[in-house]
Amino acid sequence: MEYKIALIGCGNVGEGFLQILYEKAGWLKNQHNFEAKIVAICDKFKGSLIVPEGIDLKKLLSLLARQQRIDDYDPTTKMVQVDPLDMIENIEADVICELTPTDIKTGEPAASYIRKALRCGKHVVTSNKGPAALFYPELIKLARQNHVFFKVEGTVMSGTPVFSLFENGLSGNTVLSLKGILNGTTNFILSQMEEKNLSYEEALAEAQKLGYAETDPTADVEGFDAMAKIMILASVILDHPLRIEEIERRGIVGLKLEDIRQALQKNERIKLIAEIENHRGQITARVGPKSLPLTDPLARVMGAQNALVFNLDPLGQIMIQGPGAGKKETGYAILNDLLAIHRNLVSLQSHLK
Amino acid sequence: MEYKIALIGCGNVGEGFLQILYEKAGWLKNQHNFEAKIVAICDKFKGSLIVPEGIDLKKLLSLLARQQRIDDYDPTTKMVQVDPLDMIENIEADVICELTPTDIKTGEPAASYIRKALRCGKHVVTSNKGPAALFYPELIKLARQNHVFFKVEGTVMSGTPVFSLFENGLSGNTVLSLKGILNGTTNFILSQMEEKNLSYEEALAEAQKLGYAETDPTADVEGFDAMAKIMILASVILDHPLRIEEIERRGIVGLKLEDIRQALQKNERIKLIAEIENHRGQITARVGPKSLPLTDPLARVMGAQNALVFNLDPLGQIMIQGPGAGKKETGYAILNDLLAIHRNLVSLQSHLK
Repeated sequence: MEYKIALIGCGNVGEGFLQILYEKAGWLKNQHNFEAKIVAICDKFKGSLIVPEGIDLKKLLSLLARQQRIDDYDPTTKMVQVDPLDMIENIEADVICELTPTDIKTGEPAASYIRKALRCGKHVVTSNKGPAALFYPELIKLARQNHVFFKVEGTVMSGTPVFSLFENGLSGNTVLSLKGILNGTTNFILSQMEEKNLSYEEALAEAQKLGYAETDPTADVEGFDAMAKIMILASVILDHPLRIEEIERRGIVGLKLEDIRQALQKNERIKLIAEIENHRGQITARVGPKSLPLTDPLARVMGAQNALVFNLDPLGQIMIQGPGAGKKETGYAILNDLLAIHRNLVSLQSHLK
Repeated sequence: MEYKIALIGCGNVGEGFLQILYEKAGWLKNQHNFEAKIVAICDKFKGSLIVPEGIDLKKLLSLLARQQRIDDYDPTTKMVQVDPLDMIENIEADVICELTPTDIKTGEPAASYIRKALRCGKHVVTSNKGPAALFYPELIKLARQNHVFFKVEGTVMSGTPVFSLFENGLSGNTVLSLKGILNGTTNFILSQMEEKNLSYEEALAEAQKLGYAETDPTADVEGFDAMAKIMILASVILDHPLRIEEIERRGIVGLKLEDIRQALQKNERIKLIAEIENHRGQITARVGPKSLPLTDPLARVMGAQNALVFNLDPLGQIMIQGPGAGKKETGYAILNDLLAIHRNLVSLQSHLK
């Protein structure tokens, strides 16, 4: 089956996704009977491109690698900037991949793009934390009303599949708590401080140099990113949306190398822990540094890795650990959601025959 | 939706499954619109029971808890022993749960039960490693031909959902290798030797006392159990069935406390590792004790826990850790497979409307 796909936003995640599609096209067709045709891309900074017969990914990826604009793809048909809402409405596409940057306060403009796409009967796959954190119940309802899918695997732990793990493997349990390391940047900084004896400022500078932290690191180091992920987990897994004000949030700013050393002397390690507890339906959530005994599996998760522990009745503790960020890793999450949609449609078709 | 279910075999796994069904019935109906009616049980040692209107689980569980026979359930209708093949063919049931003990050499009699059930158009859920290790390709094909499901989640890592994780969350990757601790008994013995300074014999006796090891511990300590699980992983995940002769197998018999101490002095820990490597389609597999650096996430998995590391392209390393054995834990796997079947049927129905 072939899917026509349009990308709104083409930064790191979009590029990672396109790279995987390019490298794995033959394998995906053989293994999963899945073919993707990218028919349009619309990026605020890099320009727009509409190619109904499908974009040549090799050509596009080499443009992106050279930091060129997307609309340099075909100079003879160079277009003026397209309004994403118009494109979503008018493009002939099965799926809209919404890959613009997160605004955790408003969820915009992504939320408007997603609403428009769902109303137009297009499946939506997103890696944007804003709409999933703020409007998941509304958006999933809208998707169901329009008989399409709304998938958010890439919003938490990049390609590490926490939502599909829960939905397909753990949802027969009552969730007693979720506890995880959900932000790779801060975990990298804390690991660097310990392993290289660096101050917080030195480790942050190192993370920025390596591309793990942004020039303005606020979203990561103040815990906003982990908070957004907690909000998404609460909505998707516990069916209990949380407001920003309901979540206790502290970051790692102000942590000293001395604090880390003192914890280690007590056989403990400081981690930025995001957690949700479910006391018979009373949900509480917080993000903050926590000193964990070294025997805690989360204490052993180092560097840019992420991990999530599900505390379940009757199954007990399940932990999943994997990459928490990265271009290809988050790009994979987009592919994973597309394959999930594909599996559903294939199963449907095979039964309709 | 209500499912009529028949159990073939009612040992630990069956009892764990029935306990969960009993405790969670209301929750499962509310949360998943899932209802299970146990219409028949057939156990070689405990007798048989057929109750078309559904067995009273409270009454049955109290019989089982008192080590009584299943056919004591209703003395007025006490039946002669039923032939499982007859029951499978004639009982009015949607799903057969095949929960008899594993015979890794022949897969029997379970394989015959499963073939019969699939041919009769009944879904099959099993925790029996024999048929899955030896005949998975044949059985899954038979299931598809008969438009029913054949599910094996409970055969590897008990309720820790490795197959649904892979199918739904990771199958967009090429699997480069799988590496895991798949046998809880041996991991418990190795952990006891280290933590309590016990000889192999003392730790084995402890494991037997606590019910982690059987009176005849051969299947676990000689690596046969882990080997069967490797065969199932190879069939289900890599679509590459392996014969017993193709798998290098060593157990933990003969390991000395001294070996464990020496490894620790080199910052290593000995684990019984089961692994499959995929060198561009060339599959090799082995089970044996391996000395891992303490930084390896598998080196940190202690006690009766299991863990599996997927080495994937493009996603990298994903680890899942959780219970590897246990009555309720494996019982949960049966429920999980039933819920997977249920989700598929619900999705189908909702689209047919």
